[in-house]
Amino acid sequence: MTRPVLRDDVRIIDTTLRDGSHAVAHRFTETQVRDTVRALDAAGMEWIEVSHGDGVGGSSFAYGFSGTDEMSLINAAREEARRAKIAVLLVPGIGTVDDLKRAHDAGAEMVRVATHCTEADVSPQHFAVARELGMETAGFLMMAHKTGPENLAKQARIMVDAGCQAPYVTDSAGALLMDDARARFEALVAEVGDEAWVGYHGHQNMGLGVANSVIAHQAGVRYIDGSLCALGAGAGNSPTEVLGAVFDRLGVATGLDAGLLLDAAEEVVRPYLSRWPKMDRNAIVQGWAGVYSSFLLHAERAAERYKVPAHAILRRCGERGYVGGQEDMIIDIAIALAEEQTT
Amino acid sequence: MTRPVLRDDVRIIDTTLRDGSHAVAHRFTETQVRDTVRALDAAGMEWIEVSHGDGVGGSSFAYGFSGTDEMSLINAAREEARRAKIAVLLVPGIGTVDDLKRAHDAGAEMVRVATHCTEADVSPQHFAVARELGMETAGFLMMAHKTGPENLAKQARIMVDAGCQAPYVTDSAGALLMDDARARFEALVAEVGDEAWVGYHGHQNMGLGVANSVIAHQAGVRYIDGSLCALGAGAGNSPTEVLGAVFDRLGVATGLDAGLLLDAAEEVVRPYLSRWPKMDRNAIVQGWAGVYSSFLLHAERAAERYKVPAHAILRRCGERGYVGGQEDMIIDIAIALAEEQTT
Repeated sequence: MTRPVLRDDVRIIDTTLRDGSHAVAHRFTETQVRDTVRALDAAGMEWIEVSHGDGVGGSSFAYGFSGTDEMSLINAAREEARRAKIAVLLVPGIGTVDDLKRAHDAGAEMVRVATHCTEADVSPQHFAVARELGMETAGFLMMAHKTGPENLAKQARIMVDAGCQAPYVTDSAGALLMDDARARFEALVAEVGDEAWVGYHGHQNMGLGVANSVIAHQAGVRYIDGSLCALGAGAGNSPTEVLGAVFDRLGVATGLDAGLLLDAAEEVVRPYLSRWPKMDRNAIVQGWAGVYSSFLLHAERAAERYKVPAHAILRRCGERGYVGGQEDMIIDIAIALAEEQTT
Repeated sequence: MTRPVLRDDVRIIDTTLRDGSHAVAHRFTETQVRDTVRALDAAGMEWIEVSHGDGVGGSSFAYGFSGTDEMSLINAAREEARRAKIAVLLVPGIGTVDDLKRAHDAGAEMVRVATHCTEADVSPQHFAVARELGMETAGFLMMAHKTGPENLAKQARIMVDAGCQAPYVTDSAGALLMDDARARFEALVAEVGDEAWVGYHGHQNMGLGVANSVIAHQAGVRYIDGSLCALGAGAGNSPTEVLGAVFDRLGVATGLDAGLLLDAAEEVVRPYLSRWPKMDRNAIVQGWAGVYSSFLLHAERAAERYKVPAHAILRRCGERGYVGGQEDMIIDIAIALAEEQTT
């Protein structure tokens, strides 16, 4: 299970076509996927994640239906890539082992199994199946601000023992301040660094995704996620093209051409953006209060329907500590806020 | 010249109505200024900077004409503020001592004198006049990435000896990576920290404005600049509302109400934004190559006129090391690039 020795200091994994799916309401077209993969591939990206924003099998009433079947998109991505390989996300409880096999058949060569940061014990069967299929594996410990470094490292240990090659500090809420992030990176590297690569997946809700990526590298993290134009849930992800420029300036080898990443963001992704992810009030409140980034569009829809402020919904989600999978509570909060307004 | 003892750990200075002037092509209206000042004042902002983006006297053919005379805007801001005080920027060579006196008459109580990071020696007479007028003083050492920490501290010493109460590490290009920023903060605090407050003015071109602000606080910097909605040159400034949320989470006292800052950004500034500052290719190239942020709109206009890419113009500005005051060279580069295209 030891990681292969690779030539680069840090490996960026691009999640435009997965986390970005939240930001386009899961409406990626095959043409957009092909164009994006081609541009990323040309810039030297090794891994490109493609799937519904909530992972394979996410297309549903609860999480939003995909505009195009994600297996077609994975297949198109696989066809288009010359050197890059395709990764998928799988959230146990949303995606199934069967979804994973179909994604593998469609061309995915890595699965990133995502659980809440204290629930790594729901992941082992998915890692086992993935390894049987010969896939590479990573494990997302989501909402990583919700538990301390020591416990997060124990959860990473559970994943690695189950066949995970790269446990991730996954800052789903964009809530990790720099010292919080550093402590978690160091704890995971200390616990599993001899056997696995540690990863970092950041969101820009507090504007710290790039800084935390630099800190991650300093702490020995090897996989760092980014999205072109920051396309992703909440205020978006750490922008891949900025990571490319910053690591270039730092002299950290990524295997990427920073100029071509800038072109990919500007000329390929920007033209199809329906909205540029930004640190607006709703997104900042998510980071400030520690709310799952993919709650944003759900909260905005509920806000419109029940005529209450989305930021008030999100703030209450934070107070109550809701996590991924509790999207249905957003409606309940909106109804309650509407009743409070009228009484 | 010793700084007064104040109750808060860090003091944010809001520059929406000055650096943001670049982002609205110097077209702020009196109503926008009054609304913004009222919202910032309510959130507890002590200092609000108001002037042409290039400082008092900046309204000109070279730097762009103001839509409304800046002295009217300063006066309106002064009238509207209940507790907040008004600051202005002055760039020697653009603004004059006479402009400073007029700004003081209009209600400005602080001047921030801005020079290139190696040219502090052009600032003393302006500090002397400001102190005679009874104004508070700060000094911008612009393009602070262009010289090392030790020399920057010497330049800060020149300013402080001339009457500057707060020399600033001014990252005009948004080019300072975190360790570069920290080294400069520490050098200035070591050199002048007993007599003056050190300040930090950041841009988001590499996405590091908020992170560098946190590092600034750790290093003993007391004045930190922000703009609502990041409104400012290049990819904008460190967003004031994000600084409010982050320092709140860190438990660092700022005297600000973070929720009211979020409301100010969302409900007052966002509606009048003509474009939300973003890390697009042009802005990132400014950080990557170290180009003065306020060159952005000039480069975009030249790009359109001469049919060459703005990012190519900016990259060449970086290669040639142009600094503020050399805006006219942008046209020369555009003409040269156009000729290269056709030959």
